[in-house]
Amino acid sequence: MMRYTIVGDWGTSRLRLFRLEAGAVTDRRDGPGIAALPDTPEAVLRAAIAPWRDDGPPASISLCGMIGSRNGWRDVPYVACPADAAAWAAGAARLDFDGSEVAIMPGLACADARGVPDVMRGEETQIFGAMALDPALGRGRHRIALPGTHGKWAEVEDGAVRGFRTYLTGELFALLRDHSTLARAGAGPAEAPDEAVAAERAGFAAGLAEAEATPLAGALFQTRSRQLREARSQAWALGFLSGLVIGAEVAAATAEPQAGAVMLIGDPALAGRYAEALARRGLATHLGDGDACARAGLALWESLT
Amino acid sequence: MMRYTIVGDWGTSRLRLFRLEAGAVTDRRDGPGIAALPDTPEAVLRAAIAPWRDDGPPASISLCGMIGSRNGWRDVPYVACPADAAAWAAGAARLDFDGSEVAIMPGLACADARGVPDVMRGEETQIFGAMALDPALGRGRHRIALPGTHGKWAEVEDGAVRGFRTYLTGELFALLRDHSTLARAGAGPAEAPDEAVAAERAGFAAGLAEAEATPLAGALFQTRSRQLREARSQAWALGFLSGLVIGAEVAAATAEPQAGAVMLIGDPALAGRYAEALARRGLATHLGDGDACARAGLALWESLT
Repeated sequence: MMRYTIVGDWGTSRLRLFRLEAGAVTDRRDGPGIAALPDTPEAVLRAAIAPWRDDGPPASISLCGMIGSRNGWRDVPYVACPADAAAWAAGAARLDFDGSEVAIMPGLACADARGVPDVMRGEETQIFGAMALDPALGRGRHRIALPGTHGKWAEVEDGAVRGFRTYLTGELFALLRDHSTLARAGAGPAEAPDEAVAAERAGFAAGLAEAEATPLAGALFQTRSRQLREARSQAWALGFLSGLVIGAEVAAATAEPQAGAVMLIGDPALAGRYAEALARRGLATHLGDGDACARAGLALWESLT
Repeated sequence: MMRYTIVGDWGTSRLRLFRLEAGAVTDRRDGPGIAALPDTPEAVLRAAIAPWRDDGPPASISLCGMIGSRNGWRDVPYVACPADAAAWAAGAARLDFDGSEVAIMPGLACADARGVPDVMRGEETQIFGAMALDPALGRGRHRIALPGTHGKWAEVEDGAVRGFRTYLTGELFALLRDHSTLARAGAGPAEAPDEAVAAERAGFAAGLAEAEATPLAGALFQTRSRQLREARSQAWALGFLSGLVIGAEVAAATAEPQAGAVMLIGDPALAGRYAEALARRGLATHLGDGDACARAGLALWESLT
């Protein structure tokens, strides 16, 4: 019988399951996120991995993400920072599942020097995975940024997550794009699709520049006033808005100088925008593949237990 | 026949019409804003003032607000800052209306030292009205803040509006309250209504304090993490969010020191929150009634033409 393990990133909006053999992905299955489960998590997982069960039970199953929250399968308590991979794995919930064991990995919690709390659930797996994939990242101090709906900036030192901060950037951008009066169609000129792409890029650069000059609270309305007064298009305005919120995040996250490149983990297009913002501040970046980091982090479960 | 004038603040969401006799309000009528007009602006205005027409035609009608935008009755070009009341009134559009004349007052446009544009439409009437009501405000330099959906901070000098900046604070708060994951019910404990009021106030004070310590981009997510980690209620979280966005606006708007009190024009409860934020920064405030300022500004039309 083939020996295989199953690892899964089970977030709010989707489930991504991978079958691993000797560390390589040999198959994958996608499923619903915890916000839209048609059945119990057990039943959804059972259906998703049914084809693989023909090869016998998996050697292990490890899951990360919001499946470990109160709205998921089991509310797994956060592990407090500083936390290395061993402390993190020790916080996993181990559940019986069809004769196998499912490990639901915990999130991390931290408090900054003033005691302000923060939490993550899912990104810690990518961070530990990134350090497993790149031993240099596991030695000394590094900054790791994970852009997204709730972007995280973590400080790691010698393999442990010392602390982190969450930026609402992705959610804020989507809210302002979809629901605000800032970038509605029609305020500026219409343009052809290829012009729109170029305008969006130019707007993004202008937004990054403006984020350095003006606090976010006083800069956001420019998205509209520049359409009205500078005849900017909606595409330009959306790029400008993206530049403003990403620029504000990067400025706040890098306010304290620190040597060394920033490790960016996530969607390549989005990470590229962060790399552009960081380059403006004189900071180099490395780019990590989000899925590969998540798989590597989940695969740690077997080696750490 | 009684001599009377009609002044009206006709914004996106509502029309407020006042009948003035010798400067005093003798009647008022409310109607739909320009976003929900059941008929042409002429027809809506005609119906609204019909009872007053029994006393003969009005001596003048002056309107301000979004009725002067492209989606209103007539797109009235912005008047460029610096602008005093005479320059502003000279920019009004004068339309024939049932044998009378309707003046639609223009908005103002400005550009800061870097050339960044901004616009207002409606608030300028309150600013000129405030200076008409308080001659001291019309001499020397003063800061006037008009909190709201799109809050404005204007610099006035010797009766002229030199420039201003728009803050998206009210819209941002409403978006984050109604559409984000930050302050959903259920993350923290439930509480009785009177406890909720106290919690909201305490949250607001905590948000103001946090706004001084952390840029908005990195502070917003605390609204959620403090519910999760400090067992804060939804009411506390909404107060905290309000404190964060108002604190960020006030910090940005008062970054350049300037002597003298800030004139606050608007809803008393909201203005009170701004006064609290300004007091933390050592700034005194005066409070002006928004409706009275708008009426006084609109009444200038007769004296300036």
